[in-house]
Amino acid sequence: MAGKAAHKADALLALGAVELRDRLASGALTARELAGACLDRIARLEPEVQAFAYLDGEDVLAQADRLDERRRSGAPLGPLHGLPVALKDVIDTARMPTENGTVLDRGRVPLKDAALVAKLRGAGAIILGKTVSTELAYLAPSKTRNPRAPGRTPGGSSSGSAAAVAAGMVPLAVGTQTGGSVIRPAAYCGTVGFKPSFGAIPRTGVLVQSPTLDTVGVFAASVADAAMLAEVLCGHDPGDPATAPAPSPRMLDLAQAPPPVLPTLAFVRLPGHETADPDMRAAMDELAAALGERCFEAALPTAFDEAAAVRERINFAEMAKFYYGYEKRGWDQLAPETRAAIEAGKAVPARDYIAALDWPDVLYAGLEEVFERCDAILTAAAPGPAPEGYGSTGSSIFNGLFTLCGTPAVTLPAFQTGAGLPMGLQLVGRRGEDGRLLRTAAWLARELEALQSEDAE
Amino acid sequence: MAGKAAHKADALLALGAVELRDRLASGALTARELAGACLDRIARLEPEVQAFAYLDGEDVLAQADRLDERRRSGAPLGPLHGLPVALKDVIDTARMPTENGTVLDRGRVPLKDAALVAKLRGAGAIILGKTVSTELAYLAPSKTRNPRAPGRTPGGSSSGSAAAVAAGMVPLAVGTQTGGSVIRPAAYCGTVGFKPSFGAIPRTGVLVQSPTLDTVGVFAASVADAAMLAEVLCGHDPGDPATAPAPSPRMLDLAQAPPPVLPTLAFVRLPGHETADPDMRAAMDELAAALGERCFEAALPTAFDEAAAVRERINFAEMAKFYYGYEKRGWDQLAPETRAAIEAGKAVPARDYIAALDWPDVLYAGLEEVFERCDAILTAAAPGPAPEGYGSTGSSIFNGLFTLCGTPAVTLPAFQTGAGLPMGLQLVGRRGEDGRLLRTAAWLARELEALQSEDAE
Repeated sequence: MAGKAAHKADALLALGAVELRDRLASGALTARELAGACLDRIARLEPEVQAFAYLDGEDVLAQADRLDERRRSGAPLGPLHGLPVALKDVIDTARMPTENGTVLDRGRVPLKDAALVAKLRGAGAIILGKTVSTELAYLAPSKTRNPRAPGRTPGGSSSGSAAAVAAGMVPLAVGTQTGGSVIRPAAYCGTVGFKPSFGAIPRTGVLVQSPTLDTVGVFAASVADAAMLAEVLCGHDPGDPATAPAPSPRMLDLAQAPPPVLPTLAFVRLPGHETADPDMRAAMDELAAALGERCFEAALPTAFDEAAAVRERINFAEMAKFYYGYEKRGWDQLAPETRAAIEAGKAVPARDYIAALDWPDVLYAGLEEVFERCDAILTAAAPGPAPEGYGSTGSSIFNGLFTLCGTPAVTLPAFQTGAGLPMGLQLVGRRGEDGRLLRTAAWLARELEALQSEDAE
Repeated sequence: MAGKAAHKADALLALGAVELRDRLASGALTARELAGACLDRIARLEPEVQAFAYLDGEDVLAQADRLDERRRSGAPLGPLHGLPVALKDVIDTARMPTENGTVLDRGRVPLKDAALVAKLRGAGAIILGKTVSTELAYLAPSKTRNPRAPGRTPGGSSSGSAAAVAAGMVPLAVGTQTGGSVIRPAAYCGTVGFKPSFGAIPRTGVLVQSPTLDTVGVFAASVADAAMLAEVLCGHDPGDPATAPAPSPRMLDLAQAPPPVLPTLAFVRLPGHETADPDMRAAMDELAAALGERCFEAALPTAFDEAAAVRERINFAEMAKFYYGYEKRGWDQLAPETRAAIEAGKAVPARDYIAALDWPDVLYAGLEEVFERCDAILTAAAPGPAPEGYGSTGSSIFNGLFTLCGTPAVTLPAFQTGAGLPMGLQLVGRRGEDGRLLRTAAWLARELEALQSEDAE
C-alpha cells in the first residue's frame, strides 16, 4: 500500500504546476490530495535531500482543507488555488519560523507575512514550508544535498528551494538572488529557475542583504510553471522602492504563446567562459551550431570585465551595513565566508560604493546594443555541473553581472554531462521584458526537446 | 534724465513679481521696459554688489523684445511671460556660460538648458543672467557683497541670487540648497527664500554636489512671488529620480489664499539655538509671545542632535564622488574649504554612508509628531544677522537638518537688529505640503506687518 501511494504521489508530482492547477480547477484533484502527495514524497526524500528548514504537515493539510472548502463554497478563487509553494527561509512568514539560514535567528517567528507571501495567500497557494537557505543567503554551504547529482552541492543560496523542486517534492518554490542564487542552483539541480527583472517582485519582508541587488526569483519544472508563479508575485509595493506603480508584465500567457517570429539568440561567451568545464563549453557550442541562423555569436564590451568586482563592491558594502546587527549579536557564530564578505564591505570607501552604483546603467547600455539584434542572450548558467562535495556552493560567475544589470534571466536544464549530471543554460532578456524572455525560453525548451529526440533516434 | 530713469526703474522693481506679471498682462508694462529697468538698476548697483557671474544686456533685451512680440501676436503665453529671472551659475544654460563658481569651469558653455531652465523658457521668463555661486556651491566665499548689510557676507552658496533679489536688481532668482544655501542667504540679505520639498523641482542640468540633498529653491520679495516662480519649476523629470510622476502642488493660489482656520505654529529651539545671537533669540521669543495661542513651543527628539553630523557624512561622501573630476583636474585650484570636504568625504566608509541614508526618514518621523499639532514649525533661519566680513558665508546650522529631512522651508525677512541688519525666521512644513507652508508663511508675513505697524504707532 505504501508503495502504491508513493507511486501515485510521484505520478501526480511529475505533472507540471499548470496541469495541476487545471486538475484542481476541474475537480479532478483536491488541494488535500496534492498536499498529501507532496508530504508523502518529502517524507521519503527529505532524509537524504534535507531541503526544508521548516515543515508542518498538519498545517499544510489544514491549509489544503480550507482551500478545498472554499472551492466547494463557490467563493472567488485565486490563480494558484490549491497549489503548494515552498519558500526560501529568508522570506518572512507570519507565525511560521523564518531563520534566515543562521543560528542567530534560531526560533525567530515573524509577526507579518512578507509582501510576496501575502500575494501567495491571496492567490490561494498553500504555503508548504520553508526551504533551506545558506547562511544569510550568502556563500557558506547549507545541509541541503543535490537530488540530481549525488555527492555534489545543490548550489546556493536558494539551496532548498532548488532541491525541493528538482526532487519533485513541491511543484513551485520561491528563492532570492543577489549574485547567482536562483540561476545557479537551478542549473546544478536540473530545474528551471527564473530571476525576473530587478524590482519586479516586492521584497518587503525578505531578508535584506544588498538592496541594490536582491531579487526574488522562482523555481519550477517548466518555463510556464515558473511564469505562472512569478506573475502572481509581481507588482508594486510602496514599501519596496525598487518596485514601480505600473502594470506588471503578463508572464504565463506569453510563456505559453508561440513567438510571433522565430527568436534570434545572441550566444555570449561571458568573462570566465574560457575556463568553464569542457563539457559545458562543448554543449554550448553544439547548441549554437544546432540553432543555426537562429543564433549568432556576440561579444560584450570590455567594461563587463569589471562587472564582477563592481557587483561585489556593492554587495559587500551593503552587506556590511545590513548585517551589522548579526555582526554585533554573533560575529563568532557567522561562517568564515560571511565574515570575510562583511570585512571586505567594511573596507569599501563610500566614494567607491557610490561610484559603483553608476555601473548598472553603464553596463546595461552595452547589453542594449546586443538586445537590439536578438530576442535574448544565451550563455552558460554556470561553469559546469555542480562541483563535487559540499564545501562550496559553486560559482556564480555567469550570473552576477545580470543581477547587477537588473535583467531578467532564466535557467533551462538543457544539458547533461556524460555522467548524467545536469548542466543549465541561461537566457537573459531586456529589463522589464520578462514575458518576452519567458516566451523565448519556452520556445528554446521545445527546440531542445526536439533536438534531443533527434539525437535519441 | 539718468536720475529720473533710475527713479522709474527703482519704483518699478519695488513692485512684486505678481504685480509685475499683472501689469505685463494688462499691457501697462512691456517686457522690454521691465528688462530695461533691471539692467538700469544692475548697472548702478553691480559694481558694489557683484551678484552676477554672467550678464548680457543685449541678449536680455532681445529676449524681452521677442516676448513682447509674442504677446502682441496673440500666441499663447506662459505664466511668467516677460518676467526676468536670474539663475545661480550652477544651473546649465544653453549657449550661456555656466561656470559653477570655479575657475576649473571657466569658459564652460553647456549645450543644453537644465530641465528647470527649459521650464522657465516655456513659461515665458526672461533668463536675465547667471548669479554668483560660491565655489561648487560649497562654503568658500564668493565675491558677492550683501546689499542690505554693508561689510557683511550675503551668505552662500546662492550668494548672487539672494543679493540680486535683495538689491532689487531682479524680481526673481533661482538657487540651490544642499545645506542651507537658500534659506541662509535669504535671511542674511533680508529677502524671501523658499526651498521646496526634496524632489519638487527637477535637477537635471544642475551641478550635482550631493544627490541625496541637493534641492533647487527660489528667491523673491514676497511669499506669493516665490510661490509663483516655484510652481512653474516643479514637476516630474524622468532624468531626476528624486522627482515623482505625480501632480505638483498648487503654490501660488494657496500662497494667496487666507488660511481656512488660523494657523498654529510650533516654535522649536533647534540644536544650537542657545548659542544664537541674543538679538535673534530675543526676536524669536518676542514673536512667539506676540503670536500668543497661535504658537506653542515644541522640542525635537534628541536624535536631531545627530542630524548635522549625518547630513555632513552624506554630503561629503557624495561630494567626494561627484567632484572627483574637479579633484583630478585641479585639486590645487580648489579652495581649502572644498578640499577639506572632499578629503572628509574620501574617509567615509560605505557602511556609514549607507547607514546615514536611513536617517532622513527616522528624523522625519520625529518631525511628523510635531506636524500633527501645528501647521508649520517656526525657527530662526540663521543664528543671527550676516556675520561681519567676507571670510565665511555664515552658519547653516538651522537649515541642514531640514534639507536632510526633505521638508519645504521658507525664510521670512522678519526682523532687524538694533543696527538695522536683516534677520530671518524659518518656517518648515510637511514633505509635499509646499502649498500649505506657503499659505502659512504668507499669513505670518501679514501678521508680522501688523505687529510691526503696531510697534510703529
